[in-house]
Amino acid sequence: IHAYSLVHDDMPCMDNDVLRRGKPTVHVKFGEAQAMLAGDAMQALAFEVLTPEHGVPAALQARLCSLLARSAGHAGMAGGQAIDLASVGQPLAEQQLRDMHRRKTGALLQASVLMGAACGPVSPAAWNALAAYGDALGLAFQVVDDILDVTAPSETLGKTAGKDLDNNKPTYVSVLGLERARAHALELCAQAHAALARSGLADSSALALLADKVVQRDN
Amino acid sequence: IHAYSLVHDDMPCMDNDVLRRGKPTVHVKFGEAQAMLAGDAMQALAFEVLTPEHGVPAALQARLCSLLARSAGHAGMAGGQAIDLASVGQPLAEQQLRDMHRRKTGALLQASVLMGAACGPVSPAAWNALAAYGDALGLAFQVVDDILDVTAPSETLGKTAGKDLDNNKPTYVSVLGLERARAHALELCAQAHAALARSGLADSSALALLADKVVQRDN
Repeated sequence: IHAYSLVHDDMPCMDNDVLRRGKPTVHVKFGEAQAMLAGDAMQALAFEVLTPEHGVPAALQARLCSLLARSAGHAGMAGGQAIDLASVGQPLAEQQLRDMHRRKTGALLQASVLMGAACGPVSPAAWNALAAYGDALGLAFQVVDDILDVTAPSETLGKTAGKDLDNNKPTYVSVLGLERARAHALELCAQAHAALARSGLADSSALALLADKVVQRDN
Repeated sequence: IHAYSLVHDDMPCMDNDVLRRGKPTVHVKFGEAQAMLAGDAMQALAFEVLTPEHGVPAALQARLCSLLARSAGHAGMAGGQAIDLASVGQPLAEQQLRDMHRRKTGALLQASVLMGAACGPVSPAAWNALAAYGDALGLAFQVVDDILDVTAPSETLGKTAGKDLDNNKPTYVSVLGLERARAHALELCAQAHAALARSGLADSSALALLADKVVQRDN
């Protein structure tokens, strides 16, 4: 789902980007029509992968499809992208920016966490804590993305730097300024750790490390 | 899934069509980026609809998601579209044309039939007969589509007529000629009826009517 969203997002009618993960974007290499179809096929593939003939209980397959569909669709990623598009050149308040990113980036990151949780027995309290962790992680990821867009060179980033500014998009940096955006990323990281602490999971060290990596990354 | 495929298919990088169901296409009315996102969101919505919180047994939800994902993705509709794109200007044999349409149009039509079958108790023999019915129905639909593209005016069609010819796409009409294409549509309709006859279903009259409508339609 994430890969398909990048392929579509890079297309000329969206962000019109030529570089992704240090390589030419799909539409640059294969043409726009094939890029659109590749993205479409990848979205279907996600649900194909979640519904194998053997090895995963049917009830779990249904639960995973439900979580993924809701996070990828109109109430999640695709809806957030549509709001993002409509926001170009618009001054957004921090609350509106957060709502947009909760859908656009946060929903899918949170779903990744909750789809893992759905595979094991977890208490309702742990589920809620993991949902809060995923929410903080998703927002932290976006805040750091906005910071890197203005501070990191394209070579480090593996994609074109400075795009948001060029496109006149509201970002955490444009709304909060660089220093407050950095402080906000650390605060969200702390919220993620606090959520893990109250999850009651026997071992949440990998998730804790992930939160740190999201905030400390340089690409 | 079908609606999303039409929205994407009409976009400038694909068929570049301005008319659909007698109205302006989505990208004409709302812009290309919103059309792409609307299609993306609709694909996710299909899986959301199949996985409600209550009212459908989880095992059935999983089965329906599996059937739909496989018919919509690389091995089905999206893959067929990619082959279709790559075939522009290529002389295809009837067998290659059939393979392409089995994926592009047939897979999803067959899935609609089999998703219905999955909801009720059907014998393996009935399942296979319904799969054959869906296959014949899907091919018949495409043959008739190709015929209407050259014989029906845009007003009746609700979409731009003559597009395939303009785009130098291989069609049943270009491969078989108009008269043999018409005969082939009737033959596929007969195959669909024969499959229903051996399905052993107590009442397959609605499916029989559907096969007739697909072949006798004028738009």
